Amino acid sequence: MKQQPDDEKFPARVYKDTVLAPLFEGVKRHHWRHQMQINQASAVLLAEGGLLSGAEARAILGALDDIVRTIDLERLVYTGEHEDFFFYVEAELIRRLGVEVAGKLHTGRSRNDIDHTVFKLALKDRLASLFAAHAAMIEALLAVAERERATIVVAYTHGQPAQPTTYGHYLGAFIELSLRDMDRLLHAARTVDLCSMGAAAITTSGFGLDRARMAQLLGFAQVQDNSYGCIAAADYATGVYGALKLLFIHAGRFVQDLNAWTGFEIGHLHVPDAYVQISSIMPQKRNPVPVEHLRLMASLGAARCEAVLTVVHNTPFTDMNDSEGEVQIAGYEAFDTGQRLLALLGGLMAAVRIDSAKVLRHIDEAGITLAELADSLVRTEAVSFRQAHEVASKLARHMIDGGITLSKVPFSAFQQIFAAAIGRPAALAEADFRRFTTPEHFIAVRTMQGGPAPAPLAASFARYRAELAGHQRAVAAISARGQAAQALLAREVSQRLAVA
Amino acid sequence: MKQQPDDEKFPARVYKDTVLAPLFEGVKRHHWRHQMQINQASAVLLAEGGLLSGAEARAILGALDDIVRTIDLERLVYTGEHEDFFFYVEAELIRRLGVEVAGKLHTGRSRNDIDHTVFKLALKDRLASLFAAHAAMIEALLAVAERERATIVVAYTHGQPAQPTTYGHYLGAFIELSLRDMDRLLHAARTVDLCSMGAAAITTSGFGLDRARMAQLLGFAQVQDNSYGCIAAADYATGVYGALKLLFIHAGRFVQDLNAWTGFEIGHLHVPDAYVQISSIMPQKRNPVPVEHLRLMASLGAARCEAVLTVVHNTPFTDMNDSEGEVQIAGYEAFDTGQRLLALLGGLMAAVRIDSAKVLRHIDEAGITLAELADSLVRTEAVSFRQAHEVASKLARHMIDGGITLSKVPFSAFQQIFAAAIGRPAALAEADFRRFTTPEHFIAVRTMQGGPAPAPLAASFARYRAELAGHQRAVAAISARGQAAQALLAREVSQRLAVA
Amino acid sequence: MKQQPDDEKFPARVYKDTVLAPLFEGVKRHHWRHQMQINQASAVLLAEGGLLSGAEARAILGALDDIVRTIDLERLVYTGEHEDFFFYVEAELIRRLGVEVAGKLHTGRSRNDIDHTVFKLALKDRLASLFAAHAAMIEALLAVAERERATIVVAYTHGQPAQPTTYGHYLGAFIELSLRDMDRLLHAARTVDLCSMGAAAITTSGFGLDRARMAQLLGFAQVQDNSYGCIAAADYATGVYGALKLLFIHAGRFVQDLNAWTGFEIGHLHVPDAYVQISSIMPQKRNPVPVEHLRLMASLGAARCEAVLTVVHNTPFTDMNDSEGEVQIAGYEAFDTGQRLLALLGGLMAAVRIDSAKVLRHIDEAGITLAELADSLVRTEAVSFRQAHEVASKLARHMIDGGITLSKVPFSAFQQIFAAAIGRPAALAEADFRRFTTPEHFIAVRTMQGGPAPAPLAASFARYRAELAGHQRAVAAISARGQAAQALLAREVSQRLAVA
Amino acid sequence: MKQQPDDEKFPARVYKDTVLAPLFEGVKRHHWRHQMQINQASAVLLAEGGLLSGAEARAILGALDDIVRTIDLERLVYTGEHEDFFFYVEAELIRRLGVEVAGKLHTGRSRNDIDHTVFKLALKDRLASLFAAHAAMIEALLAVAERERATIVVAYTHGQPAQPTTYGHYLGAFIELSLRDMDRLLHAARTVDLCSMGAAAITTSGFGLDRARMAQLLGFAQVQDNSYGCIAAADYATGVYGALKLLFIHAGRFVQDLNAWTGFEIGHLHVPDAYVQISSIMPQKRNPVPVEHLRLMASLGAARCEAVLTVVHNTPFTDMNDSEGEVQIAGYEAFDTGQRLLALLGGLMAAVRIDSAKVLRHIDEAGITLAELADSLVRTEAVSFRQAHEVASKLARHMIDGGITLSKVPFSAFQQIFAAAIGRPAALAEADFRRFTTPEHFIAVRTMQGGPAPAPLAASFARYRAELAGHQRAVAAISARGQAAQALLAREVSQRLAVA
Repeated sequence: MKQQPDDEKFPARVYKDTVLAPLFEGVKRHHWRHQMQINQASAVLLAEGGLLSGAEARAILGALDDIVRTIDLERLVYTGEHEDFFFYVEAELIRRLGVEVAGKLHTGRSRNDIDHTVFKLALKDRLASLFAAHAAMIEALLAVAERERATIVVAYTHGQPAQPTTYGHYLGAFIELSLRDMDRLLHAARTVDLCSMGAAAITTSGFGLDRARMAQLLGFAQVQDNSYGCIAAADYATGVYGALKLLFIHAGRFVQDLNAWTGFEIGHLHVPDAYVQISSIMPQKRNPVPVEHLRLMASLGAARCEAVLTVVHNTPFTDMNDSEGEVQIAGYEAFDTGQRLLALLGGLMAAVRIDSAKVLRHIDEAGITLAELADSLVRTEAVSFRQAHEVASKLARHMIDGGITLSKVPFSAFQQIFAAAIGRPAALAEADFRRFTTPEHFIAVRTMQGGPAPAPLAASFARYRAELAGHQRAVAAISARGQAAQALLAREVSQRLAVA
Repeated sequence: MKQQPDDEKFPARVYKDTVLAPLFEGVKRHHWRHQMQINQASAVLLAEGGLLSGAEARAILGALDDIVRTIDLERLVYTGEHEDFFFYVEAELIRRLGVEVAGKLHTGRSRNDIDHTVFKLALKDRLASLFAAHAAMIEALLAVAERERATIVVAYTHGQPAQPTTYGHYLGAFIELSLRDMDRLLHAARTVDLCSMGAAAITTSGFGLDRARMAQLLGFAQVQDNSYGCIAAADYATGVYGALKLLFIHAGRFVQDLNAWTGFEIGHLHVPDAYVQISSIMPQKRNPVPVEHLRLMASLGAARCEAVLTVVHNTPFTDMNDSEGEVQIAGYEAFDTGQRLLALLGGLMAAVRIDSAKVLRHIDEAGITLAELADSLVRTEAVSFRQAHEVASKLARHMIDGGITLSKVPFSAFQQIFAAAIGRPAALAEADFRRFTTPEHFIAVRTMQGGPAPAPLAASFARYRAELAGHQRAVAAISARGQAAQALLAREVSQRLAVA
Repeated sequence: MKQQPDDEKFPARVYKDTVLAPLFEGVKRHHWRHQMQINQASAVLLAEGGLLSGAEARAILGALDDIVRTIDLERLVYTGEHEDFFFYVEAELIRRLGVEVAGKLHTGRSRNDIDHTVFKLALKDRLASLFAAHAAMIEALLAVAERERATIVVAYTHGQPAQPTTYGHYLGAFIELSLRDMDRLLHAARTVDLCSMGAAAITTSGFGLDRARMAQLLGFAQVQDNSYGCIAAADYATGVYGALKLLFIHAGRFVQDLNAWTGFEIGHLHVPDAYVQISSIMPQKRNPVPVEHLRLMASLGAARCEAVLTVVHNTPFTDMNDSEGEVQIAGYEAFDTGQRLLALLGGLMAAVRIDSAKVLRHIDEAGITLAELADSLVRTEAVSFRQAHEVASKLARHMIDGGITLSKVPFSAFQQIFAAAIGRPAALAEADFRRFTTPEHFIAVRTMQGGPAPAPLAASFARYRAELAGHQRAVAAISARGQAAQALLAREVSQRLAVA
Repeated sequence: MKQQPDDEKFPARVYKDTVLAPLFEGVKRHHWRHQMQINQASAVLLAEGGLLSGAEARAILGALDDIVRTIDLERLVYTGEHEDFFFYVEAELIRRLGVEVAGKLHTGRSRNDIDHTVFKLALKDRLASLFAAHAAMIEALLAVAERERATIVVAYTHGQPAQPTTYGHYLGAFIELSLRDMDRLLHAARTVDLCSMGAAAITTSGFGLDRARMAQLLGFAQVQDNSYGCIAAADYATGVYGALKLLFIHAGRFVQDLNAWTGFEIGHLHVPDAYVQISSIMPQKRNPVPVEHLRLMASLGAARCEAVLTVVHNTPFTDMNDSEGEVQIAGYEAFDTGQRLLALLGGLMAAVRIDSAKVLRHIDEAGITLAELADSLVRTEAVSFRQAHEVASKLARHMIDGGITLSKVPFSAFQQIFAAAIGRPAALAEADFRRFTTPEHFIAVRTMQGGPAPAPLAASFARYRAELAGHQRAVAAISARGQAAQALLAREVSQRLAVA
């Protein structure tokens, strides 16, 4: 821990090793192209604003092109000679053009506004990829849901089999939630789409640069207004990771259902061999381990989002490294985890199948259609709901005590229980009694909005398709704006380079 | 730990003591009125749907009224006789009307859809109060910002004095962030505004009830579609607490600035005696302790929001107590903390004042206007930014080495440095040199969008006022819908009660 | 948000309402007795150190007694006249004795050291209660484990039935973990047992007070050394809540097993009616809801512990309100949740029973004894483990494909598979084949340390009993020290009061 | 999302890409050597237990050696042919030796006990490195503290200058906390030192293997008892990351002090140029950015620890991937962050210096020695503390109102204030008055345990050195045991290989 001689000038060796070199590697891996894009846009803007002559702009743009063409990232090792990649590029410009010309590129800007603009551009890329993966996963589930719109499954409450529904209806619940998750993330993405350029260090500058034009050249939706906020607010990051965290948490809850449904004893969901791992010593085991991996990815993803919020917590409201390089890059891990999660979840859900025989057997064993028997009695016997429920409850008790399944309960038992409870014989015929306790009947009568009967379910699917399409249009619009900006910037650059 | 005789029937004593009794107290304190409101709406809906006769509806609505009128919450102690408040009310209805009539009220619904609807109604109340407090806080800050639009302060980056700006401009950054926080919460509130009623236990029912009408009677914006999602998704809670958590984290960052600015050595912000605590043994101390309390409230509020997300994490995607009573009530603590935070922050910010003498002294000592000198040289001396910056840097070094403030740097020093760096004498006159290094000049030239000069700042304030007004209209529209629904429900009830 | 006239002197109304009054209520509810205890100890210490005369000590101790006797906490409402409870008591002393005498009590101390000592005393009380509840829960589980040492259950890995073991052995795993949780908390409690008194505001004082004597009078194990650390470190809180959080997380994992085991389809654990809630509309449902409540308590408890860590995060290392009153009291909620969790978990575990018929049926269906068949073949047929495993795997495949349970697999199938795989007939007789696949044999041969066979399990239980007894001795020693200190302090006080 | 033909056999392509291949890379990077070490130990143990003949053991150990010698990790790409690295090695063994011999190595063990043993070995390595770095950091701070034992600094409470103390005393507070952090981590490390081997899949096996011998061969302190706990409890991970998280949080608080102390206006801590970054556009700025990086590392490290706890939360208590490969490796990132944090913190603290002139000026300006004046009056004027405090308070008010520093307050002012407050003239001479308000006097009289005067501070340093030495001995003992085990294993292996 003794001070080395080389610690006397900047950077101290330990600082170089623990901070500057890792940051430089991060820029090489994640951010350098966005920095160069901003450099081009700055040159165009300064030229448009008369702060660079045509010749100066041409020289700078040419040199920038040359740097991009000739840079060998693999061999670019951090030496401490330049504080960071920004100063490295500036030095390369000066080496090519001299300080009189090269020194003009940084007019009216700062690493502060550049950095946050770089981070936003990088986040926009990741959001675009994630939106695509999310939409694909939703699409995959929607396809399954439509295909299996009539496949009967057991719906649970409090961890117990509760009522029959269809697999399509069940999946619809998660699809609807996923669409809201996507909506939350789209809403969060709006803040990412506010351009920080022009804020310079904090307060803009006196050069009268056109911030709206800069935003356009870089593909942002708008200028972020208050210049101090541009470099200090950081809610473009907290907002995105806060919303992404919810996606992870919600996906993890769905995965917990998969975990239960693929368990040996429930077994309603059959996982094909392609997704099943074996034990190294237990010959009979079929471990649907991908489900566990999905769960841990959901948890790890959520924790990685939370990391960004944690780092920002209780920091001052100024431009701070706590929302910069290392933290942004730590956040990208959450996106990587999200990509893997969404791909695996979509793939797995396309591959698994309902084991209908097992489902129907458990429905009969658990007697979960009894709630509809009670409802049907209300409609056919003119008893109150609570009275009908009492009849059904006693029938359930009869079934459990007798150790029989619902379909094996004798009709006479129903008749006796009804008569005892209501004080008169039931009017119901046995055929209706049996029909009222089938899962098919259970589902067929549930025609209210949001229910599992074919009509409302079809309406729900149509709604989901429309909502997904809407989200995808919003995503496409962001991408289109980005691409238009890249084309615009390329055009502006090449025009300036072309001038003799 | 020996089993007591009274453990043999439900509820076991330990279960009663640790769960059921506390839950009952929670309903008494937070939820019972919403339950009764839903009971009324159910009676109206069933009557409209022909599932209750006029006489039955009148009897039930009358009995509900009677229960509300005669209930003595203080004396209502949980005994375990009824599982919960819901069954207590049903028993009271049956006692008054008999099971044939009373037993009809629960037709086509379940505690599942009732519970989540209750929680949403309760959350809507809390959101309304919080929006009001948040708007008031933003309003208070905006008033200060407008009043102090020209008051010079020091803006920091990396914890160091960086540039002069105005207090109004600085506050604008936080106001803008707060407006986005409010927008995030408004967006999250949309999911709260989806009605769960009609979902019944999971799958709706076969009674063909009009879910849209029910949503209207209770003041919701829409029906939540998928019925399983209505009782399982719980993202109305995670969404709200996720967004509220960001508000806390962001407010906490602003509070960290207050903490620095009110420190003895910086002291740019004067806290009046009304907010200053003294030491029990250090006579000279003036502790602006409210700032610390604000910080801890922001942290505690964030943690309380996170608690709701934690509880939901890795639970199955079904109706679960993990998103019910105890957890919802734990969430309300975050709202309470939020109310206190916003009130104290607004009050404190209205009371504190900038110590301009100290600010100006530090500006001169820190030489933070030098960046503008560099920029001005670019404009007046036709040097590149990097060259101008080098001149200013050497001047800064001269100042620091000489232990003098910027205003005391001799003009000749500037002239020598300029000549040495640029290779020719500077054209600049001393008066301009002095003017270029004043904070007033610094601010006056920053006329770009989002900058601190009067024109852009006025434009920003106008934008904030408009945005705040928009948010408040959105809040008012939610409230208005709720009030209209209450009036509608009251009308429907009284009409049915009035029928002879 | 307009400043009220009454805002001009301390405390501002909003500060009083949002901070000081709630804090005062917190002291009334949680801390005032500890403050008075410290006041007594201070008087004794000052008298012993010659800083109070006998008469002064008697007067002060008498007045303190009088205050405690006459204080009417219910009617003590915060008015803002005194900043807090501390100054209220000082004022009461001065009112009774005059400032010349009363003013001496605060010699050589500060609210800083008093506060953290109060918080430690309060935390020690809560730790003592929690240790008792934790030990009782472990005791209850140990009793069940011993009773059910031979009851066969299914052990799971990756959510799938994996191997038979005994209920006693399974519970042993959680008991062992719980003992380590208790050990972690005991280790954390050591830091709570370091006395802050004498640190005064930060740096001790020049009065030469005997800190070790003060620690003894208050029942602490030792003096906390560095005086700044005494009021700034706060790791007595973070350490305790960090350890307590693990207890919650680990308990929650066990609860997730209970959730699975009590599910309808698994059903290995029967929950008696005293712990089962019913559905309001689904007649057949038996919801073991206490399990869900345990899970949410575990999560909420963990989140409440984390809240304390969150609040301290990124605060400066000085005495700060971020580790004081409101935060400490927020932490107590985690203890309350812990008490409820441990009581309910112990009660529930004493009440539930293994459904052995179901367990044995599932063992046969899942064929989870096949791993032991493979092992037995290694021992009896001199094949390598991997060869034996291959035979067992093929048998498993035969069983699954044939849709039969393990006990129904024909011996001839085994013989054919063995011969095909190994290239010679198996020597094994059918009786041994059948025996090797029984769960009883499976367990009987697992006699290695930590295994489920009777001998190692009995050794484990003995180890747990010894470890629990050791923990309880450590807890008892802390309590005994506290009681001895209270007796000592009472004696010192009464002797001083008795002097004429 | 269409199923590919290659999805039909294990592993599905998406599962391979998102899970298995990344896991394989993780084993290559972090765990393969530990797996091979366990393979060697297994062969030795089986040979000792008579389950391998001498020839078999020699063959297996030779083949294992051969695999290690010839494996080319760089070119080892996951193909999906073998599920994981474990099966890859088994296949390599079988290829070399045939299944009859190679198939014996896995007797009485499972991937479950192997995996958790591997994770513990890997964690032990990381803990050893971290303990070394932590001890070095503490050592560095202790050296500074001893060197600067008499250097006066300002101690803060509530963010305000409160009292003078020495830099050595201040650092002592953090050193003491750091020693407790190390102690917490050492305590957590004990659970890591419990060997899982022999637990096999869950319940041990019937092979009667000697678990204690296996623990010895691998360098563990003890066998972890309950075999299910060995593969399910996972508290070796939660315990370590829970403790490590506290280290990060506490270090972060100290860093917040550095942040304040290096701020321009306070400036008590001078950061040399080697650690100071400049602004790209603000010429005067000296940004001690390493401090921010330390803060963000502390936060990120804490969040990465929390990630491990999050992933385990609400998972069932069985062997689960939620505590395996990907999660363990995610945890290692926290150790990496910790290493960087500790190195940079130690390096920076060795390099920074107190700016004594600035400190003394602020002490005089803030008048923070007044508390000692009050105490001195108690001792010299026979007034009560509260009376003396009132005199000092009025003097403080006089000083503040007059805008003068404490050393400039006229003695006559003191005399008048004293006389007015106490009702008689003060006996104190001016020389004593002046002396009583110097920081030197302030510190000199604070000779109580834990105070800043030379004697108690020297005693504290001695205590810290002893405690650190104790911790280091504990660390060394763990390392020594590990090295002894490696030597033992190497000896056992080479002896078996040597047999002809």
